[in-house]
Amino acid sequence: VKHRAPVSSLRTVSRRAEAFAGEFDLISRLCARLPLSRRTLLGPGDDAAIIARGAGAQLVTIDSMVEGMHFDLRWGTPEQLGARALIVNLSDIAAMGGAPKACVVNLAIRPGLSPEFFERMYAGLGRAARVARVDVIGGNIARAEQLAITIALIGDAPAKPLRRDAARPGDGIFVTGTLGDAAVGWRILEGKLRARGAARTHLINRYLAPTARLAAGARLARIRPAPAAIDISDGLWQDLGHILKRSRVGAEIDPSAIPVSDAYRAVMRGDLSLALGGGEDYELLFCVRPKYGARRLAAMLGVPVARIGTIVKGREARFLGGGAPALAGWDQLRAGAP
Amino acid sequence: VKHRAPVSSLRTVSRRAEAFAGEFDLISRLCARLPLSRRTLLGPGDDAAIIARGAGAQLVTIDSMVEGMHFDLRWGTPEQLGARALIVNLSDIAAMGGAPKACVVNLAIRPGLSPEFFERMYAGLGRAARVARVDVIGGNIARAEQLAITIALIGDAPAKPLRRDAARPGDGIFVTGTLGDAAVGWRILEGKLRARGAARTHLINRYLAPTARLAAGARLARIRPAPAAIDISDGLWQDLGHILKRSRVGAEIDPSAIPVSDAYRAVMRGDLSLALGGGEDYELLFCVRPKYGARRLAAMLGVPVARIGTIVKGREARFLGGGAPALAGWDQLRAGAP
Repeated sequence: VKHRAPVSSLRTVSRRAEAFAGEFDLISRLCARLPLSRRTLLGPGDDAAIIARGAGAQLVTIDSMVEGMHFDLRWGTPEQLGARALIVNLSDIAAMGGAPKACVVNLAIRPGLSPEFFERMYAGLGRAARVARVDVIGGNIARAEQLAITIALIGDAPAKPLRRDAARPGDGIFVTGTLGDAAVGWRILEGKLRARGAARTHLINRYLAPTARLAAGARLARIRPAPAAIDISDGLWQDLGHILKRSRVGAEIDPSAIPVSDAYRAVMRGDLSLALGGGEDYELLFCVRPKYGARRLAAMLGVPVARIGTIVKGREARFLGGGAPALAGWDQLRAGAP
Repeated sequence: VKHRAPVSSLRTVSRRAEAFAGEFDLISRLCARLPLSRRTLLGPGDDAAIIARGAGAQLVTIDSMVEGMHFDLRWGTPEQLGARALIVNLSDIAAMGGAPKACVVNLAIRPGLSPEFFERMYAGLGRAARVARVDVIGGNIARAEQLAITIALIGDAPAKPLRRDAARPGDGIFVTGTLGDAAVGWRILEGKLRARGAARTHLINRYLAPTARLAAGARLARIRPAPAAIDISDGLWQDLGHILKRSRVGAEIDPSAIPVSDAYRAVMRGDLSLALGGGEDYELLFCVRPKYGARRLAAMLGVPVARIGTIVKGREARFLGGGAPALAGWDQLRAGAP
């Protein structure tokens, strides 16, 4: 792991003589304030970081946020962006029931962004890392035309990880929290939907500052047999599809049971398209044996839990009573959304 | 770790209705042929991969290659690109004296590239992974305007890792192989330098298909006290600078001792600028106590080794007899190179 300037590229230098002044200084400053625990035997600044091993198996995940694709700098603060880049990864560890431990960060930087921008971004990343007890053990900087933050995250696996292939016919299908808020928030930021006051703030914050359900995931992993689980990053219908495909089962979903917030309802009325298809909520979707009800699960996990359907034989998801959202076809769903 | 399409992005869909058809199919195909050993308890396709732990500490590194910055698709094959993306990471593990074990891959894909391109790229990545005994345990796909491959690599640390901060005055400074070949090869591909026949092939291959010095690094890590080491990715002078800074020492370099290939000499004559400043060679630069000579080290490491200087008190690198390349200042060096 080198937080190195990509001057390894001859081209970088020959074509970009405007190269950041003091880039190495920036790198040192960014790394200086990042959290490191005793587990980290050697932090940023060498060819690779060194971490002590824990007991048990290890989880590894990688995720990326690209400017213009996954975020827009006008919408939130640099701190929120840095935090969010880690949180989307934390959510993957949460969906396995694990405990995140250490990450490395690849930053693709473009011209036009100040050292202060990156310092604030790293301050947000560092804060989110501290809250989740994650060491930022190293990274790399490369120049590019788009800003992108890619984080690889390592965690401790629970004894029985929450896999996507564990759903069985008869399982109840549950989600934490409410769905669709982040997708509505995004559209408010884009100017495609409108909201006021507290509803507006709530929806936008759900997009800009999501929560990874780490504690709920860890508690879920204590249930036996181990539930199937996934985090809802691509939208309920699509992420449910991943569980169904890997578990080779079908699902019956009760649309009236999909949990939406008052803020969502204030904007979308009865339209569930963004609750069914909108991503970025980072709630957990999971399937457990029928003896577990929503109330008991909510008490166990410490978060709101709603039962939205049942795993059945078959291969597809459909609504109770037949039908499905018109999304063979996320694109179709999008087209139908406001 | 999800090899997921970034349809999580509402924007992706609304702005890019041309979205790759069958993207999920592509992802499955790419992952299907990648090597997985028994260490990998769960490979691609879930929220995170699961790997068994080994004994001892762990190395973690991340590196990225961006189209137009670090590579040009016209210059090599997709297979070479995929292999190279892993090799630049393997080199970081080699420079710590470690053994690479598992990696996750983030692919930023742009429009205009065929499924066949990615299949060939992954075939090259898979082959390089098999040779190095690395499991490709998962990844992520995001859309972007530039193609970029970012790999995070996990390895087993040796008992005494090769750190940058271990150089002491009196140490001999050594490099493996020859320097500058890749930088010349790059310039040949760019049309800025010319070469013929075997020399041309050799120089271009040194850029397109570098070797990570894994075995040499692992053997180097058996020497006590543990040598300081770094891989030469940014150029000898700059990478030496990292060792000097971290070790708080200076260096005297004998320019006549810099090892260059016959092919390099055929193109560059006596001009050492690319041997001193050209990156991408992925040779090892290391510092060991004075009792070790080049011949003994070459026999121990199984690769050509040249002594190029001595660690001294101070903070800077200079040539024997005074002076230094005009590179406060990589840019200056570049400007002075052909």
